[in-house]
Amino acid sequence: MRSLRVAAAQINPTVGDLAGNVERILAAVREAERLGCDLVAFPELALTGYPPEDLLLKDGFVADARRALDQVAAASGDCAVLVGAVVPASELVGHVGTPSDSRATSAPLLANVAAVCAHGEVAALVAKRLLPNYAVFDEQRWFVPGEGAPTLLRIADAVVGVAVCEDLWTPDGPAAAMAGSGAELIVSLNASPFSIGQHGRRRQIVADRVAETGCAVVYVNQVGGQDELVFDGGSVVVGDDGRVVAEAPTFLEHLVVADLEVHGDPSEVTEALVEISGASRRVDPADLGEVAVPRSEEGEIYAALVLGTRDYLAKNGFTDAIIGISGGIDSAIVAAIAVDALGRRHVRGIAMPSRYSSDHSISDAEDLAARLGIRLDTVAIEPAHGAYAAMLRDLLGGEPAGLTDENLQSRLRGVLLMAVSNDTGAIVLTTGNKSEMATGYSTLYGDSAGGFAVIKDVPKTLVYDLCRWRNEDARAQGLTAPIPDAILSKPPSAELRPDQVDEDSLPAYELLDPILSAIVEGDRTVPQLVAAGHDPDLVERVARLVDIAEYKRRQMPPGVRITSKAFGKDRRMPITNRYRPQGPGAS
Amino acid sequence: MRSLRVAAAQINPTVGDLAGNVERILAAVREAERLGCDLVAFPELALTGYPPEDLLLKDGFVADARRALDQVAAASGDCAVLVGAVVPASELVGHVGTPSDSRATSAPLLANVAAVCAHGEVAALVAKRLLPNYAVFDEQRWFVPGEGAPTLLRIADAVVGVAVCEDLWTPDGPAAAMAGSGAELIVSLNASPFSIGQHGRRRQIVADRVAETGCAVVYVNQVGGQDELVFDGGSVVVGDDGRVVAEAPTFLEHLVVADLEVHGDPSEVTEALVEISGASRRVDPADLGEVAVPRSEEGEIYAALVLGTRDYLAKNGFTDAIIGISGGIDSAIVAAIAVDALGRRHVRGIAMPSRYSSDHSISDAEDLAARLGIRLDTVAIEPAHGAYAAMLRDLLGGEPAGLTDENLQSRLRGVLLMAVSNDTGAIVLTTGNKSEMATGYSTLYGDSAGGFAVIKDVPKTLVYDLCRWRNEDARAQGLTAPIPDAILSKPPSAELRPDQVDEDSLPAYELLDPILSAIVEGDRTVPQLVAAGHDPDLVERVARLVDIAEYKRRQMPPGVRITSKAFGKDRRMPITNRYRPQGPGAS
Repeated sequence: MRSLRVAAAQINPTVGDLAGNVERILAAVREAERLGCDLVAFPELALTGYPPEDLLLKDGFVADARRALDQVAAASGDCAVLVGAVVPASELVGHVGTPSDSRATSAPLLANVAAVCAHGEVAALVAKRLLPNYAVFDEQRWFVPGEGAPTLLRIADAVVGVAVCEDLWTPDGPAAAMAGSGAELIVSLNASPFSIGQHGRRRQIVADRVAETGCAVVYVNQVGGQDELVFDGGSVVVGDDGRVVAEAPTFLEHLVVADLEVHGDPSEVTEALVEISGASRRVDPADLGEVAVPRSEEGEIYAALVLGTRDYLAKNGFTDAIIGISGGIDSAIVAAIAVDALGRRHVRGIAMPSRYSSDHSISDAEDLAARLGIRLDTVAIEPAHGAYAAMLRDLLGGEPAGLTDENLQSRLRGVLLMAVSNDTGAIVLTTGNKSEMATGYSTLYGDSAGGFAVIKDVPKTLVYDLCRWRNEDARAQGLTAPIPDAILSKPPSAELRPDQVDEDSLPAYELLDPILSAIVEGDRTVPQLVAAGHDPDLVERVARLVDIAEYKRRQMPPGVRITSKAFGKDRRMPITNRYRPQGPGAS
Repeated sequence: MRSLRVAAAQINPTVGDLAGNVERILAAVREAERLGCDLVAFPELALTGYPPEDLLLKDGFVADARRALDQVAAASGDCAVLVGAVVPASELVGHVGTPSDSRATSAPLLANVAAVCAHGEVAALVAKRLLPNYAVFDEQRWFVPGEGAPTLLRIADAVVGVAVCEDLWTPDGPAAAMAGSGAELIVSLNASPFSIGQHGRRRQIVADRVAETGCAVVYVNQVGGQDELVFDGGSVVVGDDGRVVAEAPTFLEHLVVADLEVHGDPSEVTEALVEISGASRRVDPADLGEVAVPRSEEGEIYAALVLGTRDYLAKNGFTDAIIGISGGIDSAIVAAIAVDALGRRHVRGIAMPSRYSSDHSISDAEDLAARLGIRLDTVAIEPAHGAYAAMLRDLLGGEPAGLTDENLQSRLRGVLLMAVSNDTGAIVLTTGNKSEMATGYSTLYGDSAGGFAVIKDVPKTLVYDLCRWRNEDARAQGLTAPIPDAILSKPPSAELRPDQVDEDSLPAYELLDPILSAIVEGDRTVPQLVAAGHDPDLVERVARLVDIAEYKRRQMPPGVRITSKAFGKDRRMPITNRYRPQGPGAS
């Protein structure tokens, strides 16, 4: 039995911020060194932040990123540093594949690697083999896959294999090959984004690989928001017996440190080892092996929304947010998330009643603002509404009416919020939920106008669940529940015409949301939904709404992805799309 | 020497319109049969339209598309039909690769095939081998590659190989393998979008492959607009001596028919042949072998913009367009394109002067509208401008000023145009050019509000070139030049404050556009541009503008791609991006 001390550095890098990311990495390296660790692992592409997207097509960027890796290597000492980096594939000649297309680009072929640094040098580069190219992932756009026999390292007398993210996901895949060659410990570098239930799936994958390979696993994941993605962390160290030795809290930066035993037979190693270090550096005793308390599902989602919002603003230079407060539930949850992300002094509400707004909308908005402790201004849009009625009279042959008048009111609010944004430098947070995004129940340049769409991936029924959870969480801590009960109990309404409620235009959300989930996340077609027992007219109508709203979604601001399929780069549907399912045979 | 009659059906399918595409295909098949053709070739994925994108993740869609192929096969007779289709990869067991990732999706593995139909049946399925996954292409998201020995067909006693698009592009690739196995003729099914110069590059590729393989080539390409892409067609039949036998006009549907000689030695064929037909069906004489007259570069670009706009509207159910006419050059060219695409009775201009608009703006707008023969309404935005000044006074602590007031005017125009759009059902065409998109010199929800951004990929200097070309083209035909000279000669201005001109905020476009092209299309970084002799302060400033405008571009409507790299799915830059090039060493 041999033992080593390992660290998983769950950091929050910023895409493109090479100098800042190097600094963050070196701070964790110093801490790992101080704690006597034999190795410290960082997330996939930690040096560039994940995903750097088409920055990778700039050879200047790749060269700068390569120099950043050299900086980390130069600062490395006895503790092995395993860090995600991008390198030209030419550095790994003979161990990477070629692209399976004939791309005519001046960009170099790249590899997504775990760089192993120690004693001031890059000791090994281990290229990712399985390059995800589905869902939000485009890795075959930029990288060529690693190939050939596994690279094994000797660290503190243990035989260590290295897997980059997806490489750990497949049974009988790269991890099994490492174990077959004699690895005792697999270090897994990840940039695995949050979605509902994903934390549990990842834990299961790690458990499956430990069971399959008999190896211990150090699993490190990125944390933080990057455009539409939020990374939850949840880094974990698992012994070769399957026991969770240490685990990081989710949605926070954290250095997980643990002592691990390995029980392999180094004489059975079939590959040449890259020699990194001999006896373990660990010093006893140490306060190691904390295991984080799991969050509830709602708690997890809410934390994702808070961190996604906080990081989008902070990483893009915003400190303050403006929200149009309608007195409805969507703007209420967005305001609560914004306050939790930024602090109440950095959030400002603006109520913009029209001639159709109800009295309770104003009082509910005021109650919400009071509970959250945020500034609320009220500006009636009637002067602009009246001005446009006159300006449009000749063009339209009468006053604007129907949908034209409803959209007009929404856009007049958008104009007002954007003027305040331009004047103050605060970002406008939009309040549309996923049910509205899906069905197009929103106004382009109206309620959808703004810089970040906090709940665009949260179905309406889940908005209610999150509000209730947030209120209960506050009450459990003896604090004021932020969302007024009146907002939770009244029927949803856009209040753009007299006595309007959402159910005039849409099915009840309890009926609608499961159908939307089947269409959007499940890719089901109408005949399949009918075959599954849904009302034909209803699913036909909903599917049609989803299709024709694609052009609106293409102009929406980004927002936090929390489901298995968000609108945006996760779901690449054509706008021009005349597909109508043709028969009941589709199964 | 043997001879056969071939047809290339350059059709304009609509994505998802399976029934409509089948109808279009069968009409061309009947015509080819009537003309005594031995084979008729259709574009890549002609049955679904290209690119179907994530429709392919719906197994119901794939099943419907498979049935559409059976319809085409059932209608096929003696003339072989080679048509682009999608099939489950399971239909090609042993001849397709596996995805190079561990995708956890319920979607079936698919192949992008040329289906060979004859005598009422699908006789062969030839899977695409090289799957482009760069630029606007995501084919590795949906398809697994074809593998194994080439499939060869015997058609009219000739030995025929089949290449799907990219398969023809690589030297020593799939085409060479077909020739090595005995092919005399290669039929190449394509969906290759337009960009400047691409037509000539394709011709060169075909010539190169003919020279390399000694095979004749039937090259058929899709025509028509699909969201941001426009396909130019340009189908061509080239003899094994390199001579262009027949060529379709660009940007139009067309059936190219030609007689081709083949000179191979069928006894040298090394693969089993799929037997399709014996002696040629061709009947003499026939009026064959037309070769289209090439267009000028400006003529090609202008045709792309017209067809892209016409098809986006028609395929999405719009007949009419509204354009905010400022009296400037951008709205002038957009109006001219719209009239050429839709007809003048379907285009409506609205001039919306503010307190800062000049008299010549109004008169230039009127002159433009008169020349184009379109309706022009004029509505001053002053009433709304005044209303907002009052509504914002308390919020802003004074009247809106500076950029806030400039953006306000632009948004008030957007609100007005969208109200007319909502009321009439006509689409708003936006008028921003690529130089503005790149630098963020536009107002979100203002001048960028609308359904289609016709010239979003056209740099400002090219806007001038296109206007001049359009005027000259009209004059050469004895028609009125559509763009008033006054619009061509005055300095560009947004007219959002007194005496404003674009050059107050931006470098002269003659200086700016080459830098933008190097940054956007060339992926050059600031140190690289400085090393190439550009002014350091200027390129630093321009590069920064490009970076910080990414959030705006994400909310822009789609528009026609005409360059080698358009904004949109062609350039996937993160919004959150702190990259600053680090040194002169980047090369």
